[in-house]
Amino acid sequence: MAKGALALLIRGGTDNWAPERWKARFESELGDRAVVSVAEDRFDPRAVHYAAVWKPDAGALRAFPDLKAVFNLGAGVDAVLSDPTFPQVPLVRVSDEDLTSRMTEYVVMHTLMHHRQQAYLDACQQRREWAPRLQWPAKAVRVGILGMGVLGRHAAQALRSLGFQVAGWSRTAHAADGIDSYAGPDRLAAFLARTDILVCLLPLTPQTRGILCRPLFAQLARDGVLGGPVVINAGRGGLQIEDDILACLDDGTLKAVTLDVFEREPLEVDSPLWRHPAVRISPHNAADTDPDAIAAYVAAQIVDFEAGRPLRNVVDMGRGY
Amino acid sequence: MAKGALALLIRGGTDNWAPERWKARFESELGDRAVVSVAEDRFDPRAVHYAAVWKPDAGALRAFPDLKAVFNLGAGVDAVLSDPTFPQVPLVRVSDEDLTSRMTEYVVMHTLMHHRQQAYLDACQQRREWAPRLQWPAKAVRVGILGMGVLGRHAAQALRSLGFQVAGWSRTAHAADGIDSYAGPDRLAAFLARTDILVCLLPLTPQTRGILCRPLFAQLARDGVLGGPVVINAGRGGLQIEDDILACLDDGTLKAVTLDVFEREPLEVDSPLWRHPAVRISPHNAADTDPDAIAAYVAAQIVDFEAGRPLRNVVDMGRGY
Repeated sequence: MAKGALALLIRGGTDNWAPERWKARFESELGDRAVVSVAEDRFDPRAVHYAAVWKPDAGALRAFPDLKAVFNLGAGVDAVLSDPTFPQVPLVRVSDEDLTSRMTEYVVMHTLMHHRQQAYLDACQQRREWAPRLQWPAKAVRVGILGMGVLGRHAAQALRSLGFQVAGWSRTAHAADGIDSYAGPDRLAAFLARTDILVCLLPLTPQTRGILCRPLFAQLARDGVLGGPVVINAGRGGLQIEDDILACLDDGTLKAVTLDVFEREPLEVDSPLWRHPAVRISPHNAADTDPDAIAAYVAAQIVDFEAGRPLRNVVDMGRGY
Repeated sequence: MAKGALALLIRGGTDNWAPERWKARFESELGDRAVVSVAEDRFDPRAVHYAAVWKPDAGALRAFPDLKAVFNLGAGVDAVLSDPTFPQVPLVRVSDEDLTSRMTEYVVMHTLMHHRQQAYLDACQQRREWAPRLQWPAKAVRVGILGMGVLGRHAAQALRSLGFQVAGWSRTAHAADGIDSYAGPDRLAAFLARTDILVCLLPLTPQTRGILCRPLFAQLARDGVLGGPVVINAGRGGLQIEDDILACLDDGTLKAVTLDVFEREPLEVDSPLWRHPAVRISPHNAADTDPDAIAAYVAAQIVDFEAGRPLRNVVDMGRGY
């Protein structure tokens, strides 16, 4: 009996989402199992048991009557869950060491860049000006991680080992060595009040949409050594209200922000965020998914699943992540 | 009997070297012991048993006939050792956790900025251009630490925990968990040949002066994912040949550099380093010394010394660090 095929539904665009790169990796990992690209190949839809997707068109998965599981190729599943026709099969999110390490690289670098006054030093270099300012140590700076899933916990430990005072907030309680834990809506205000640099790694759900807005920013610590609160959003663009970010930067409620994600992506060329001196922008590349690592992860899960073992990192549809 | 006084010989200039900040901290730490600022106070030179110095004038220490030890307020002692009249007393360097952590912050941030293509992304932001490039993970990048003293070993561990492949070179063998160790002149070429990002934390001695020059740069790895070798110098300016750095950047022998130190400081306003697109400059602030932390360190050493215990981190005058 032929093994169930894997169908790829990948919306391309950037280097990392070139479908041919993904197809080659999956073919290499899946051995004798057929891998078909829905956009390009001809195949029998009933032979498809698995789908690997990135931002698939709404309704596209209905074409496969014998689908057993869907693998989302990034960490965020909000695009898939917004499709009301999503089939009644398990949706698996990517959670592998490679993705986690990349996000930690990003969070550590941008936290350090704010802490070490890199925007000021870059401006000095532009002016050919030798003007060191007093530099406090990391232990004087309080970082708060909003969202203590796998990514948040890993980044928190890396920041802690560099000397920062680190706390984490999440919906439900979490334990992490040396990290001050805050859980639930009642503890959010206390968490924000002790935070100089807020790092957002929340999933996008109906509860978190727009959470990065003026009322939240106004609760951040104002007595820290950085001279005002800093926000880093590496979660999803839907978590932030960009008009509030700009207004809060301009009236001093925020000192600076780093954004990897935006309400609409790519960020429109006429967005005032691009040229605002207190905004550092990256093009949603905080944690790229590596076809090598992800294809191996999906292949291993399929082997386990067919051997009767449970799938890992299955999305809770009610919770939304 | 009055306790021997501590004399401060501090060349000011920046916030961090404001002598009054240091005097206040030493007075608070040393309790009933007199603290005198050589530039400002009147005192009996024979009452001075200890001196705390930062770039003192040559010959200045000869004024104190009963000097027992000199404490250098930074990590690098090259400025003090270049004074041929330095008295026959122990010279103690600063080596405290605060200084070490700060240097690691700097090394980690600048290594990540090269790895994560920050100069490219900053240029994209300036052009309002959304153009992510393929981003490799840290485990694909080989960092080499030149100088595996306390600072080098600490930075190496932090980089390793972020996923980088880390090796260290030093004059004599050193053991560090998970770090490939290279020791002695015979192993320098092999160390350079496996290094994509070279981080220099060497002391400045007659043997190391000018070591960061074209013949060394030409031995760095050229097959790495970064597209060319990168050098970060956070040691001393005398380690580098700036004309070679500029020429090697322009002919592709080097891809980019980050410099915290310079042949002459402050860096002259007409230096071409300021505006070179592949040069990132910081104003010798990689690891500021914190008066609070250093004053406590010196006070503790004086207590130990007067109780008959050995001083720690005494400079080997023959070796030069």
